[in-house]
Amino acid sequence: MAQAQRRRNGNIGTGSECKEKELLLLLRERGRSEGQGHQQQRWLNRTASLNNNAKATMATVLAMAMAMLLLFYSSSTSTRITTPSTTGTADEALSISDVDADAVINLDHGDPTMFEPFWKNAGDKATVIIPGWHTMSYFSDTSNLCWFLEPDFANQVRRLHRIVGNAVTHAHHIIIGVGSTQLIHALLFALSATDTRHPVSVVSAAPFYSMYPGITDFLKSGLFRWAGDATSFKVNGSSSFIEIVCSPNNPDGTLRRAVLSTEAGKLVHDLAYYWPQYTPMRGPADKDIMLFTVSKATGHAGTRIGWALVRDADIASRMVKFIEMNSIGVSKDSQVRAARILQVISDGYELPDPDSTTSFFHFSRRLLADRWQRLRWAVEESGRFSLPQFSSEFCEFTKEHTETYPAFAWLRCDDESIEDCEGFFKSMKVLTRSGRHFGAGSEYIRISMLDRARNFDLFVERIASLGLG
Amino acid sequence: MAQAQRRRNGNIGTGSECKEKELLLLLRERGRSEGQGHQQQRWLNRTASLNNNAKATMATVLAMAMAMLLLFYSSSTSTRITTPSTTGTADEALSISDVDADAVINLDHGDPTMFEPFWKNAGDKATVIIPGWHTMSYFSDTSNLCWFLEPDFANQVRRLHRIVGNAVTHAHHIIIGVGSTQLIHALLFALSATDTRHPVSVVSAAPFYSMYPGITDFLKSGLFRWAGDATSFKVNGSSSFIEIVCSPNNPDGTLRRAVLSTEAGKLVHDLAYYWPQYTPMRGPADKDIMLFTVSKATGHAGTRIGWALVRDADIASRMVKFIEMNSIGVSKDSQVRAARILQVISDGYELPDPDSTTSFFHFSRRLLADRWQRLRWAVEESGRFSLPQFSSEFCEFTKEHTETYPAFAWLRCDDESIEDCEGFFKSMKVLTRSGRHFGAGSEYIRISMLDRARNFDLFVERIASLGLG
Repeated sequence: MAQAQRRRNGNIGTGSECKEKELLLLLRERGRSEGQGHQQQRWLNRTASLNNNAKATMATVLAMAMAMLLLFYSSSTSTRITTPSTTGTADEALSISDVDADAVINLDHGDPTMFEPFWKNAGDKATVIIPGWHTMSYFSDTSNLCWFLEPDFANQVRRLHRIVGNAVTHAHHIIIGVGSTQLIHALLFALSATDTRHPVSVVSAAPFYSMYPGITDFLKSGLFRWAGDATSFKVNGSSSFIEIVCSPNNPDGTLRRAVLSTEAGKLVHDLAYYWPQYTPMRGPADKDIMLFTVSKATGHAGTRIGWALVRDADIASRMVKFIEMNSIGVSKDSQVRAARILQVISDGYELPDPDSTTSFFHFSRRLLADRWQRLRWAVEESGRFSLPQFSSEFCEFTKEHTETYPAFAWLRCDDESIEDCEGFFKSMKVLTRSGRHFGAGSEYIRISMLDRARNFDLFVERIASLGLG
Repeated sequence: MAQAQRRRNGNIGTGSECKEKELLLLLRERGRSEGQGHQQQRWLNRTASLNNNAKATMATVLAMAMAMLLLFYSSSTSTRITTPSTTGTADEALSISDVDADAVINLDHGDPTMFEPFWKNAGDKATVIIPGWHTMSYFSDTSNLCWFLEPDFANQVRRLHRIVGNAVTHAHHIIIGVGSTQLIHALLFALSATDTRHPVSVVSAAPFYSMYPGITDFLKSGLFRWAGDATSFKVNGSSSFIEIVCSPNNPDGTLRRAVLSTEAGKLVHDLAYYWPQYTPMRGPADKDIMLFTVSKATGHAGTRIGWALVRDADIASRMVKFIEMNSIGVSKDSQVRAARILQVISDGYELPDPDSTTSFFHFSRRLLADRWQRLRWAVEESGRFSLPQFSSEFCEFTKEHTETYPAFAWLRCDDESIEDCEGFFKSMKVLTRSGRHFGAGSEYIRISMLDRARNFDLFVERIASLGLG
């Protein structure tokens, strides 16, 4: 019944989806009709006018949608998780015909399926073909300190950093890992002393990424121990520490610097989100230890590939030792695939005859800008919440002033009648992650901005609907 | 100069390589000329006659080869590692034209590149094609306890176990890991209590796999601790233990049973080598926790995929928790590829019109049988070493009596003038792993039997040459 109603009201929930579809079609059209030169500016002008039109009609569309959704809630009791299946197609991301209005929307994880339409549009050039007898050995390059690193992947990492200008690589070893998660484990091992009686303290300024405490403590290692918020950590002359600096920060999107003195401790810079779709590029980062992951750079979370840029050879060697002991290296198939994905992005910006359908960062930033615009509007409509504000900054990659569009919304419940913000959203069938997991209060929640369009749209509609009462 | 000499003496080192090539060509020929039925027996008869012919001429070929190799040693001082590059082709495995006679042969790791020729011969059916937008999500199947397990991989695992008859799967959860190494870590976490003050003891009967102690202890976990040889471990009523039972055993190839009572402790059965190419199948294993890996089952070490069959849902859940914290799941690309590889093997034995070029286990066992035959001959020629002996057993998979051909040779130096067997082989430029790493003495070494043909051939020649003096 709910489905039939939805079919009769084709607009429900599709206003913003149509917008994302329009962006994708525009990319395709530009790929056919436009030549080289002035592409970025024309593209941005065109999508800006789309944004203004959309903004004007959004309130009407959402009000209609909400009225229908309330009807659906009352007519159905079943519940299902809409966490995406990997067999889903990008076309599905542009259609909500099979989304139940009472669906539970899981925005707890930062599952970056938002990027699927770009990669579907990229076509064959992003496809990898792996014959059965390829990459069977444990070894990739025995002349490299990181012997399980595929040389082509390493080349594509250096190339992309050079094009984007977000990190120096010439003086650094590249250590590959099963996502940046394994690399954080490897760094805790590499940076801790094995001959001390006291575990090294691991800290990060709150709000910090919710996995840092668990990663550090879940095996009760005698080498390292979670010591909480870096801003309240007392540096003791006799003991060392590791400070993890996440910038832009997960969960709140702010740019970060280390808060503790580096003389007594060691710094790890987690730069997973320092890419142009999320934040203006302020020039290449040049830190001793920097972490990246394809999950957030390109959207390929299922590929489980991260990389560390590490200046010191001894630290790099100890990371390699960890990965040997932990998993005897990293999947070659994933490295081959990730190399191709990075190559497609770089080609899109560097080849003499660029195809605008491969301007990955521009495409992704437009999607995020649109989502943030709609979320801010809905939050304002609701009158109960607030979001971080970011000033416009000059981006050295796009050569223009742009805003910050974090991969997560760090939302605060301003309504004092709501004690537990996560619980409140759960009652709306929206799964988020409480601020408590990030060293903050329960008035905060972290919300993924990177899910498929249909889920994000339903989520925005539910927030906006709160203002209707 | 050495290379020119080798070209003039084309036979050097190629006697046994030609044999492996002949086996491969025979496979291809049979694929073209033979129909269904009686294939296994005819195949074995034919290769048996090859073996007899080869045996008769081997001594002459090797003696010639050794004389030339000794010349090469004296004319060159350069050293290089022949650890295979992943860009190498299977054809390379059949040619030693670029192998230096003074090459260092690395048989320290069990790098299973021996299987490459089979997979090259398998052609397109073993190839995977992954479009850029596939498998981008973290999630594979949120309805499964192991949410990062690709359903197709799970199906192919159950299918292959059913065909081979080496493990029951109907009552077990499948937990996928980054190789079985990550799964051992996951099990130590899953089987240890988090609320106890004393770490659980982890044991295995010596000689045990050299990585077990390091995996257990390298993070100085408060949850578990390596306690050495299971046969000398005293079970204490008040404390628990985990016994890892590797069968067939790495390093010595013996079949194993638990040596400790299971009432006080927990058992992990590492069945990485319980496949028909290594040992006769004695029927399906039916243990609470069983470990397998594509590395040793199919030769795809670079793919980094292992799986555990786990009866208890709580233990399975804790393993999933570990893998979430350790790497947020396992590469989807590798799972897609591993599923295809397992499918090709199963199809080869199950499809109505089987192609004999896909009889993976028969092909692999013939290669191993030939290698073991030649190694035993060379060891006998040398007069200094001994190898484990295995009786012939009935294999329920091939329905015939067969021998055991372990993936590693557990070689003992009987020559009392050799104090350190590993060091002795190193002086011959053959890298092996000392028995000391396996809880045994330095008179033992472990030698990989799974390297590419050219490395294995040079190794056998060097052993046999010791008898010439």
